[in-house]
Amino acid sequence: MLIAAGLKRIAEPSPPVCRGFVKSVFGKDGMTSVRFAMVGGGGGAFIGPIHRMAAALSGNCELVAGAFSRDAHNSQATGVQLGLDPHRCHAGWETLLSDEAARPEGQRAQFVAIVAPNAVHAPAAIAAMEAGFDVLLEKPLADGLSAARAIAQAAQRTGRLVGVTHPYIAYPMALQARAMVAKGELGAVRRVAVSYIQGWLGASEDEGGKQAAWRLDPAQAGPAGAFGDIGSHAFNLVETLTGETIVRLSADLRATLEGRRLDDDGAALFALSGGGKGTLIASQVCAGEANGLSIAIWGEKASLHWAQQEPNALRLLSRGKPEQVWRAGSDQAWLEEAVRTGCRTPGGHPEGFIEAFANIYRDFSDTVAGRTVAMPAFAPIEAGLRCMAFVDAAIASSSADGRWHWVAVHNG
Amino acid sequence: MLIAAGLKRIAEPSPPVCRGFVKSVFGKDGMTSVRFAMVGGGGGAFIGPIHRMAAALSGNCELVAGAFSRDAHNSQATGVQLGLDPHRCHAGWETLLSDEAARPEGQRAQFVAIVAPNAVHAPAAIAAMEAGFDVLLEKPLADGLSAARAIAQAAQRTGRLVGVTHPYIAYPMALQARAMVAKGELGAVRRVAVSYIQGWLGASEDEGGKQAAWRLDPAQAGPAGAFGDIGSHAFNLVETLTGETIVRLSADLRATLEGRRLDDDGAALFALSGGGKGTLIASQVCAGEANGLSIAIWGEKASLHWAQQEPNALRLLSRGKPEQVWRAGSDQAWLEEAVRTGCRTPGGHPEGFIEAFANIYRDFSDTVAGRTVAMPAFAPIEAGLRCMAFVDAAIASSSADGRWHWVAVHNG
Amino acid sequence: MLIAAGLKRIAEPSPPVCRGFVKSVFGKDGMTSVRFAMVGGGGGAFIGPIHRMAAALSGNCELVAGAFSRDAHNSQATGVQLGLDPHRCHAGWETLLSDEAARPEGQRAQFVAIVAPNAVHAPAAIAAMEAGFDVLLEKPLADGLSAARAIAQAAQRTGRLVGVTHPYIAYPMALQARAMVAKGELGAVRRVAVSYIQGWLGASEDEGGKQAAWRLDPAQAGPAGAFGDIGSHAFNLVETLTGETIVRLSADLRATLEGRRLDDDGAALFALSGGGKGTLIASQVCAGEANGLSIAIWGEKASLHWAQQEPNALRLLSRGKPEQVWRAGSDQAWLEEAVRTGCRTPGGHPEGFIEAFANIYRDFSDTVAGRTVAMPAFAPIEAGLRCMAFVDAAIASSSADGRWHWVAVHNG
Amino acid sequence: MLIAAGLKRIAEPSPPVCRGFVKSVFGKDGMTSVRFAMVGGGGGAFIGPIHRMAAALSGNCELVAGAFSRDAHNSQATGVQLGLDPHRCHAGWETLLSDEAARPEGQRAQFVAIVAPNAVHAPAAIAAMEAGFDVLLEKPLADGLSAARAIAQAAQRTGRLVGVTHPYIAYPMALQARAMVAKGELGAVRRVAVSYIQGWLGASEDEGGKQAAWRLDPAQAGPAGAFGDIGSHAFNLVETLTGETIVRLSADLRATLEGRRLDDDGAALFALSGGGKGTLIASQVCAGEANGLSIAIWGEKASLHWAQQEPNALRLLSRGKPEQVWRAGSDQAWLEEAVRTGCRTPGGHPEGFIEAFANIYRDFSDTVAGRTVAMPAFAPIEAGLRCMAFVDAAIASSSADGRWHWVAVHNG
Repeated sequence: MLIAAGLKRIAEPSPPVCRGFVKSVFGKDGMTSVRFAMVGGGGGAFIGPIHRMAAALSGNCELVAGAFSRDAHNSQATGVQLGLDPHRCHAGWETLLSDEAARPEGQRAQFVAIVAPNAVHAPAAIAAMEAGFDVLLEKPLADGLSAARAIAQAAQRTGRLVGVTHPYIAYPMALQARAMVAKGELGAVRRVAVSYIQGWLGASEDEGGKQAAWRLDPAQAGPAGAFGDIGSHAFNLVETLTGETIVRLSADLRATLEGRRLDDDGAALFALSGGGKGTLIASQVCAGEANGLSIAIWGEKASLHWAQQEPNALRLLSRGKPEQVWRAGSDQAWLEEAVRTGCRTPGGHPEGFIEAFANIYRDFSDTVAGRTVAMPAFAPIEAGLRCMAFVDAAIASSSADGRWHWVAVHNG
Repeated sequence: MLIAAGLKRIAEPSPPVCRGFVKSVFGKDGMTSVRFAMVGGGGGAFIGPIHRMAAALSGNCELVAGAFSRDAHNSQATGVQLGLDPHRCHAGWETLLSDEAARPEGQRAQFVAIVAPNAVHAPAAIAAMEAGFDVLLEKPLADGLSAARAIAQAAQRTGRLVGVTHPYIAYPMALQARAMVAKGELGAVRRVAVSYIQGWLGASEDEGGKQAAWRLDPAQAGPAGAFGDIGSHAFNLVETLTGETIVRLSADLRATLEGRRLDDDGAALFALSGGGKGTLIASQVCAGEANGLSIAIWGEKASLHWAQQEPNALRLLSRGKPEQVWRAGSDQAWLEEAVRTGCRTPGGHPEGFIEAFANIYRDFSDTVAGRTVAMPAFAPIEAGLRCMAFVDAAIASSSADGRWHWVAVHNG
Repeated sequence: MLIAAGLKRIAEPSPPVCRGFVKSVFGKDGMTSVRFAMVGGGGGAFIGPIHRMAAALSGNCELVAGAFSRDAHNSQATGVQLGLDPHRCHAGWETLLSDEAARPEGQRAQFVAIVAPNAVHAPAAIAAMEAGFDVLLEKPLADGLSAARAIAQAAQRTGRLVGVTHPYIAYPMALQARAMVAKGELGAVRRVAVSYIQGWLGASEDEGGKQAAWRLDPAQAGPAGAFGDIGSHAFNLVETLTGETIVRLSADLRATLEGRRLDDDGAALFALSGGGKGTLIASQVCAGEANGLSIAIWGEKASLHWAQQEPNALRLLSRGKPEQVWRAGSDQAWLEEAVRTGCRTPGGHPEGFIEAFANIYRDFSDTVAGRTVAMPAFAPIEAGLRCMAFVDAAIASSSADGRWHWVAVHNG
Repeated sequence: MLIAAGLKRIAEPSPPVCRGFVKSVFGKDGMTSVRFAMVGGGGGAFIGPIHRMAAALSGNCELVAGAFSRDAHNSQATGVQLGLDPHRCHAGWETLLSDEAARPEGQRAQFVAIVAPNAVHAPAAIAAMEAGFDVLLEKPLADGLSAARAIAQAAQRTGRLVGVTHPYIAYPMALQARAMVAKGELGAVRRVAVSYIQGWLGASEDEGGKQAAWRLDPAQAGPAGAFGDIGSHAFNLVETLTGETIVRLSADLRATLEGRRLDDDGAALFALSGGGKGTLIASQVCAGEANGLSIAIWGEKASLHWAQQEPNALRLLSRGKPEQVWRAGSDQAWLEEAVRTGCRTPGGHPEGFIEAFANIYRDFSDTVAGRTVAMPAFAPIEAGLRCMAFVDAAIASSSADGRWHWVAVHNG
């Protein structure tokens, strides 16, 4: 999670606005909620509240236990404030797992959400799976490709479900784009342009700049800066929406501000498995930009434009026809059914980031409960692995003056 | 609530996506959550789930009891699915109130949210206040101005707090607009244009059209159709954002589709207390429109444009300066502090309708708990009364061939 | 022309950028250009250069003579700078007409463009028609309804063609909207909202404010201010695009700034001949607004949105379908043919105000030359008369506290 | 000009709408117009009419002679239709030049505009300069870098002025962006993203696709397809707006449709002379795209976004401030003076492609006439040379699997 600067700072500027939730039970077809435990996300954490807001809004899961912090007092306090049974609030994921595993089936957590620092991901996730829990991981999957592969092997060995939270693919109109490409409405994908532009690390005197010391320290943050933090979201968006893989890339990364040792800005050319080409930009030093993730997918029959900052519209440009704008809404009959059920309100009632994140919790919980999910909003473990491989390939290419590198999980 | 068609249909097209929430406890400064009970919102209801999603997201309140339906089975089932103690799920608000009032202070509900049909508003709200509960009412305040006045009198007599849910004023950028006008940044308001345009009642063969039989039946829906349902939101938006009252109006309402007895379309000219003028349009028969609420406030020094369908942007046009676009975000330092804390995420992470609605629950709960709220996102009872007076004045003016009428709560 | 403040100021802030043109000959099918003379538009005039740029761009007309100013020296100098034969530059339209009429057929002007002050319109236009010339008039048609009627009678008597320049209906996408409504693609028009919002008369210390003394003096400007100047454009846009007439209206005009005697701000409710309703706003005191003319036409099957400030896009919202955006371009096959030929470039090459104005000159010249024009971009004399009647009705209604008035050319 | 497919097709779909102009005389400060002759642009040509519309609108130049076509009849007919003296219409540029050079000073052309096929550029331009004429060239400068260098040498030898028409830098808001970067308002430029996306060559069965046979034949079109045609515009936009050079690039070009031998799609990474980085995309096979040229320039203090398809707006994102939108208009006081005079109308009156092109004619004519032009809208010969070098470098890099190449005029 250390790399996940873009996401982690979500509640930074002010005290956590969302102050949690505990329990969510609902009654569609008599379904009961799915119980989960959280590792990380104690007082002072940033991404934890987002996960809890998302879970609250998902309507089908319930937080029942946690190891919110290595600091026992913090973990207890967090749990109690969230209304948890104090006996289910632990100082370490080890005791959390053993305690939960020992509880009766109808009471114990069914999955574990891990929002702790990246280095904790692999040991906690593997132990959780071995103890019989499914696992939902804040991205990145792990603090390196080999740790990530260990998680994947554990998943295969234990047969447990692993999901990764890439919220940008969970927006209804991103799901719609994915469905339209999959159904061939664009024809062959010819070109993709994705960019993820932020400005918060752009000035050494800003808050973001001050944090750069450790944030952009390889020892703490891993091998990549912006490309790991937000470039991986852009990469995942491309692969998810096109349904193809980025097979090769040529990258050019750099640390813009003096004294930084990790990239805060970069771009890459890439080639898709289906023959198309693309560009990817990830930068955190562009003055005035907030969270500018956008993508264009150009095909032989039609093209799509989507921008995260106005997520409820999807522009469709077709050869020989007027442009269309498809808009989110549970009542927009022309949307895929899986997209409509990913909308909580009818057309004209904007939904946003938290709702997208809630779709992840909803779909992961439904999958844990054995319910069929047509187009899951959470990223599968393979996607998490590929993001790690992408970062490695980008760094390698950039270090080799842009020589084209393969993006492969298994050739490291 | 019968009139509240625009809002009520929110989850209509598909089965209720949000399947509720039960409990929200949090720990900012050690605060505990505010307990509330709900009247209405049982299985099959539409606006109930929105209220529950909003409460879940608010982070500072907890549903503890309910009279979700007059049907005892429905009410029980709803409550149990929401994880409530079955003994706190009632078939009528009467027993709900007596049971809650009898519980010890640290356990009983602190306020009652009423989302039942409009005719229930006055009796339930008055009884709740007399039993010592604060009351949050789905708009409209009541099924007529005299019932609304009775609520107001009860509020005054008992000293209880009454809030009304007009979610459109609860968006961060609407709050920002309100603050900018209040601080004089526009100078005198010269002209306002507000319009609320929908299309779902526009064709007799559509779902909305079929419902029109009872929806637009005066006996069930009250004296106004579109002007009551959505015109009142537009009216409230004008008065809240300008901080002025609409003192007089000239209206032209009509039932467009054959066989309707209530307005489904209309417009009005109006005069503001500060000397400005304006226009208000409310229509539900405009093909292809979803939920098009937008407002322009033109002043002598600057002007504002805001549209609910893209709620995170507020355009500021100033005399002699380039146009500005102010965007929502907890980290946008130039926003009012009360606006920033109304954002759950930093700039570039879109928030929407449910988040706005959650601001109502948050602010109402905080007020109930005695915490200071700088710029409450819920509408006060006076606003609820004025909406009723507005509808009456519009109908009266329209019936008198557009003669200008006063909009006054106390001259009925 | 005195009233035409909005248009006249077009080149005000800087010295006339467009410094004229003289002759335009072209060869489509061997066509020769149509010769015309200009009354008004001498040095220091504002709208004259716009007319000349438009004529230059039209490609099918040629300025051959002029009475550019009552000041003989100015008229000569203007004409010479435009490359005209000095013998065809006159100090008055009287001598211009007699001189041109005396020239041989293949040489003399075929029509007269009148851009002189409003009071000159009727005498010059009538004399021109009686001398055998067609007439293109800068709007408004005349300085009052009775003068306008005299022009109409002369047109009928002489059989000459009269056109009025309302450039906003001459944009390709406005023509497209008109065609779509005419073909029934919207079904019955239910509601129209048109607004024309400017800010340049909003502050007494601004340039516009200083000019208000005479601009808003009834003796010089006629009976209406903003409603005459820009409200008439909005009115004409509604009638042209819907193909219906505004039969009745209720208006509320006022002079916002102290000391003004004519309206600088106002609004009206109106009823269309086809049963639809509408609102019209015209204001010149809205801070920060430039030239904000926009229209929405809502129908039973579909709705259209168009804004002059982004004129190349036309939004089409249809019941039960995704939104469409139709864009201008000579190669956009789905546009009406008459619209495509009104585009000088293929899609993606923006065109603007001057091109729209050029469509007027092109279509008027073609009509003068006897060539068929499918959907003329110039307003016919009836439209000019109706604009005058509109202004009269708005003033009368506003003076009668908003009583509904008929908009009729012949009931004055 | 063969390569200039994007521009040339401007009037393709319909018969040339703009049917020329002949003479433009005007009177600002008693200035007389600048006379010019045209090489190319005869009947059936595409870009010629655009040049003539632009010249007509410029207001300060006059077409007096031409060698419109090698076909004597065509050239005569074109010239006569344009109202030229038949004796000044020639079948070849050779006789045009000798004839014009022999005429008296006050009568002969002062510059030659060359819109003939690319292979004609160098011989005609060099001969024109040697005969004493300044030269305005349709881009690209020549059909290859060595021919381009010969033009540059002739310019230096003769001291004549050479301009190249890159209309996209001639838009007012592009000029404004250039001025803002030059004044340091962005701080150091960190990253640039430029893309030029079209779709007209995307399907072999479309009109564009059919033309591809010769259009994308190296023998006729030169070494580059899309990168030469539109990529060069994107390149020039970057260098002009940043005031820096693109020193190195890594490119990936390809022919997407079967049977093509030249690139119709590609992208490049690049490095700027000031240390910033960037991406450039040029594609003509993206379904549904019209003429999508857009640029973002991200700096350390502020960033700019501009899109050619909505050319009158320039978005400015600044660190620590609300976003601004600067809009074109002769009366927008905060614009650079040179930008305001590049607008023909005040704010809110959209201008477009032809007006931008007219700024080129205006500024080139003014420069020919010895008048000072603060920020010329035409590209200097150096820019033309650099575009040629860019294309060469892109092809070389792409052929070398993306190895970074220098973009240098003199290292070929």
